[in-house]
Amino acid sequence: MNDLSEAPKISVTTGPIPGSRKIYVGGDLRVPMREVALHETAKEPPVKLYDTSGPYSDPNVKINIYEGLERPRSAWILERGGVEEYEGRHVRPEDNGGASGKSLVSEFPNLRRPLRAVGDAMVTQLEFARAGIITKEMEYIAVRENLGREQAREEMLRDGESFGAEIPDYITPEFVRSEIARGRAIIPANINHPEAEPMIIGRNFLVKINANIGNSAVTSSVADEVDKMVWSTRWGADTVMDLSTGRNIHNIREWIIRNSAVPIGTVPIYQALEKVNGVAEDLTWEVFRDTLIEQAEQGVDYFTIHAGVRLHYVPLTAKRVTGIVSRGGSIMAKWCLSHHKESFLYEHFEDICEIMRAYDVSFSLGDGLRPGSIADANDAAQFAELETLGELTQVAWKHGCQVMIEGPGHVPMHKIKINMDKQLKECGEAPFYTLGPLTTDIAPGYDHITSGIGAAMIGWFGTAMLCYVTPKEHLGLPDRDDVKVGVITYKIAAHAADLAKGHPSAQAHDDALSRARFEFRWEDQFNLSLDPETARLFHDQTLPKDAHKVAHFCSMCGPKFCSMKITQEVRDYAAKGMDDMAEVFRNSGGDVYQELDELKAVADSNKALLAGE
Amino acid sequence: MNDLSEAPKISVTTGPIPGSRKIYVGGDLRVPMREVALHETAKEPPVKLYDTSGPYSDPNVKINIYEGLERPRSAWILERGGVEEYEGRHVRPEDNGGASGKSLVSEFPNLRRPLRAVGDAMVTQLEFARAGIITKEMEYIAVRENLGREQAREEMLRDGESFGAEIPDYITPEFVRSEIARGRAIIPANINHPEAEPMIIGRNFLVKINANIGNSAVTSSVADEVDKMVWSTRWGADTVMDLSTGRNIHNIREWIIRNSAVPIGTVPIYQALEKVNGVAEDLTWEVFRDTLIEQAEQGVDYFTIHAGVRLHYVPLTAKRVTGIVSRGGSIMAKWCLSHHKESFLYEHFEDICEIMRAYDVSFSLGDGLRPGSIADANDAAQFAELETLGELTQVAWKHGCQVMIEGPGHVPMHKIKINMDKQLKECGEAPFYTLGPLTTDIAPGYDHITSGIGAAMIGWFGTAMLCYVTPKEHLGLPDRDDVKVGVITYKIAAHAADLAKGHPSAQAHDDALSRARFEFRWEDQFNLSLDPETARLFHDQTLPKDAHKVAHFCSMCGPKFCSMKITQEVRDYAAKGMDDMAEVFRNSGGDVYQELDELKAVADSNKALLAGE
Repeated sequence: MNDLSEAPKISVTTGPIPGSRKIYVGGDLRVPMREVALHETAKEPPVKLYDTSGPYSDPNVKINIYEGLERPRSAWILERGGVEEYEGRHVRPEDNGGASGKSLVSEFPNLRRPLRAVGDAMVTQLEFARAGIITKEMEYIAVRENLGREQAREEMLRDGESFGAEIPDYITPEFVRSEIARGRAIIPANINHPEAEPMIIGRNFLVKINANIGNSAVTSSVADEVDKMVWSTRWGADTVMDLSTGRNIHNIREWIIRNSAVPIGTVPIYQALEKVNGVAEDLTWEVFRDTLIEQAEQGVDYFTIHAGVRLHYVPLTAKRVTGIVSRGGSIMAKWCLSHHKESFLYEHFEDICEIMRAYDVSFSLGDGLRPGSIADANDAAQFAELETLGELTQVAWKHGCQVMIEGPGHVPMHKIKINMDKQLKECGEAPFYTLGPLTTDIAPGYDHITSGIGAAMIGWFGTAMLCYVTPKEHLGLPDRDDVKVGVITYKIAAHAADLAKGHPSAQAHDDALSRARFEFRWEDQFNLSLDPETARLFHDQTLPKDAHKVAHFCSMCGPKFCSMKITQEVRDYAAKGMDDMAEVFRNSGGDVYQELDELKAVADSNKALLAGE
Repeated sequence: MNDLSEAPKISVTTGPIPGSRKIYVGGDLRVPMREVALHETAKEPPVKLYDTSGPYSDPNVKINIYEGLERPRSAWILERGGVEEYEGRHVRPEDNGGASGKSLVSEFPNLRRPLRAVGDAMVTQLEFARAGIITKEMEYIAVRENLGREQAREEMLRDGESFGAEIPDYITPEFVRSEIARGRAIIPANINHPEAEPMIIGRNFLVKINANIGNSAVTSSVADEVDKMVWSTRWGADTVMDLSTGRNIHNIREWIIRNSAVPIGTVPIYQALEKVNGVAEDLTWEVFRDTLIEQAEQGVDYFTIHAGVRLHYVPLTAKRVTGIVSRGGSIMAKWCLSHHKESFLYEHFEDICEIMRAYDVSFSLGDGLRPGSIADANDAAQFAELETLGELTQVAWKHGCQVMIEGPGHVPMHKIKINMDKQLKECGEAPFYTLGPLTTDIAPGYDHITSGIGAAMIGWFGTAMLCYVTPKEHLGLPDRDDVKVGVITYKIAAHAADLAKGHPSAQAHDDALSRARFEFRWEDQFNLSLDPETARLFHDQTLPKDAHKVAHFCSMCGPKFCSMKITQEVRDYAAKGMDDMAEVFRNSGGDVYQELDELKAVADSNKALLAGE
């Protein structure tokens, strides 16, 4: 550890989520889960929930932002062999946009030398999977994804429309391997980010969500960004993209990665542009290449590469209402047009593959020509680029690289499904990773909702990861509250998609919460919520007393008038005879006037019970 | 006017929505619209938006809550004839739950005698429509629904999937009449609510939204409820349901109706239950009948009637995870079971029709057995009730009553469409009016979002009106902020549905806003938003200066790095040759290496422009 007197003051949120307990399953793999114990009256086992929050929610772990997290994957990576530690690239002033003195964010104090593949030795999860090797990461993921399926296995009722996805009842390590080998899923896991807990992105697994953070030239700081990273994962972000574009990009990224238990994605062209002072025309392959290596050595798990923005697609955007709205897309379009040359990303794509393979950085093939408005959805430019992304997927796979594909954007509901269908077809079923899509343009300030609608739908249709949109989209940079609202909204979308796809264990969570709601187990209802704090807060705004959390009513109807209470009474007094009664009714065709003897008997017993109420 | 010393202190929000101006179109009909003038650089005509806010947003109207709104429909109703003014029912203590002294909300000071049909004279919009008569209300609605279609008529590009809806390019009064006559749309317009601005609910019109307000035994006051009614319509509620269940129901309702420019719906069984001290078993047809007349005389525009909860359906709910969650449904279930009798609502359905016809109160046939959890969606109880609602629709139509049908509830995405399809089939295409549906149970505190997803989808599939859900759903009574968030969320859902259905003028709003966004007309972007206040607030949180509202960048990327700015540059310098260039590229199959002479020429001109930049 270096001297910390110059280090930024960073504080993050730690401790368990209210009502939850951190547990680890899977033996030595130590796969984290969030366990919610229910009230004894429930007579139900604790509910296990997928947990992205990392060591921060474990009260037994001592967090030290200046040292970074522990590195559970280091041993696995070294054990597999084929990698070497080396000196690595030295940080240069332009890596941090020339920031100096007080404006320079100080270097992370606990730097290590990077690893890379030795020659052609296997290093990516795809290479191992193809070779029939089940990595520790794959084993870990099988445990993680099975969440509750073991216990639900026998009574499992599959119900859903999966549009051709092949979600098994139970996830084996071999299934994980086979999906990776087929390119239908990826494990973003740079060998230089051993702090990350392995996770998988693919349509036969739980739908994942990404949260974007990052400073800009106008605002934000390293402390804010590290805090937002931890905060977003606390509420469920499966990956985090650092989209910083201002100064100090290199140093901020290091602080983030060293403290992140989830995969980190970036868009390297942003930093490359900073290195040429923001002049797109001055970008070169050499500057970009240097940036890839810089970020791969730091441990970025996936790179957005806008290699599908080809010169001859740019004119297709000229008549659009909103032109090119992707930052990376517009940079490359400007470069292509100004030089009247094919994109250097496209021309050097195999070189890019070689670099990314050496660190197992996954591709997120960027949709630089995504539509930025309803008017531009599904146009020629967008789909031309998608076809090119399909072509590039094959190239990346040939090089042993893992690939996912980015998708739109702004798309009205009736045009969403074709996006999914075309992506699957063009890109060989590589995982789709979409931003929203936003289903209307008219609600700035609420674009987490306009896009949450589209995200739930495209998640259902097969998108593997949903990139969140916060309420600040189009208006400003998200703060902490925006990040949380964005994450929760996207957890809703992802879970709604899992339900609709018929994911075998998804509904268990809904059922546990609904039983708690019906039985007025208020604490259980809060604790099982995606956001226990807000659920409790909203309840307490009307009924603040502790007694009201055991009351068999709520503020909507008051004690005398609660439909759930009435139903409970209906149930209670019908408990003895109701099942038989229902059966009789069904068999009798439901005519209440048949006056069957059985019915009368049941009715009499109901009346007797009622009278004694 | 009576003495106002005892009147409650009520204040509501008035004045135009920021950036908008109230206008009236359609000549003497005076159909209100919200007009947004754009910055002169836009070179576009002002945008007209549908306006539900009533006289409150017109600075030229003097609002007096104690007098109530003007009564534009009075003349139309009297002109048509067939109605008589009469003494009406006298208010009794039990109408206000026995409230007295300080706890009694004082009577509305400007009461009038009610109207009702004389004998068999035509009074409902359905009766007039069937007789081939186009009412003023229908004319008004044609103007209101055509919003912007006149000007877009020539360039109109229909694009959407309407699932069999038949939305015409242009709405004529005759089209409105024919849809009403077929029962495919309703105009909720009690002859005793002449303050209301006519609106239509049907799947061949704009998708509408409803906001629920109302006090409960635990909380809220008349001032809060009137304020919430005005507030919800300010942001776009097309109708408001008063779901009050505590004391003072009668008097609070009067204050609401007399000041409401939108149709008001209620659930009469709530008040009937109050009249029998909350004991469901003590309900009688006579008490219910009395309540119907009481509320019809006040001017309630539609009644939720849970006549589909039949005795023999109740046992079908016994094994549900959440039983019966509808308040009306559970009351009737308890009544049926305890008496072991068929529902008096079902048995007296024709009597109910006669009462409702005499005032043109529309039916909202309640879904008392709607699912309250994902587990219970689309079960036997729910669909059995829906079939009965279809049967009752025919009965109501026979009596000349207008009908819409209420729908769920909690439904995972893959089970939503069957709800719509079955409703259309069973209920003869009567308009569907759904609550959400919520697409997952796990996010209390965010159920505006879980349900906004389902609402957008079912709206697309054909639901005519979406009942909002606020963030407080399942947790507490909504306050003012919750009401606004609920309304905006549902405006998003309704508009996303209109877009996806291919409503001919829906996209004009999106396009206007997107052009403003692309051209950095920040003020226009705010003003065209569903919620201009929040859009501006969010922008200003990062960039508060006025100068930033004319800046050609925003806080997300900063001045050097804005994709929209870059695209604008790409466009600018490509302006001369781009169109030709795009054409050439398309025709050439898009191969940039063909080195066509034309391409080179275009490229050279681009380079020249760039060099001079």
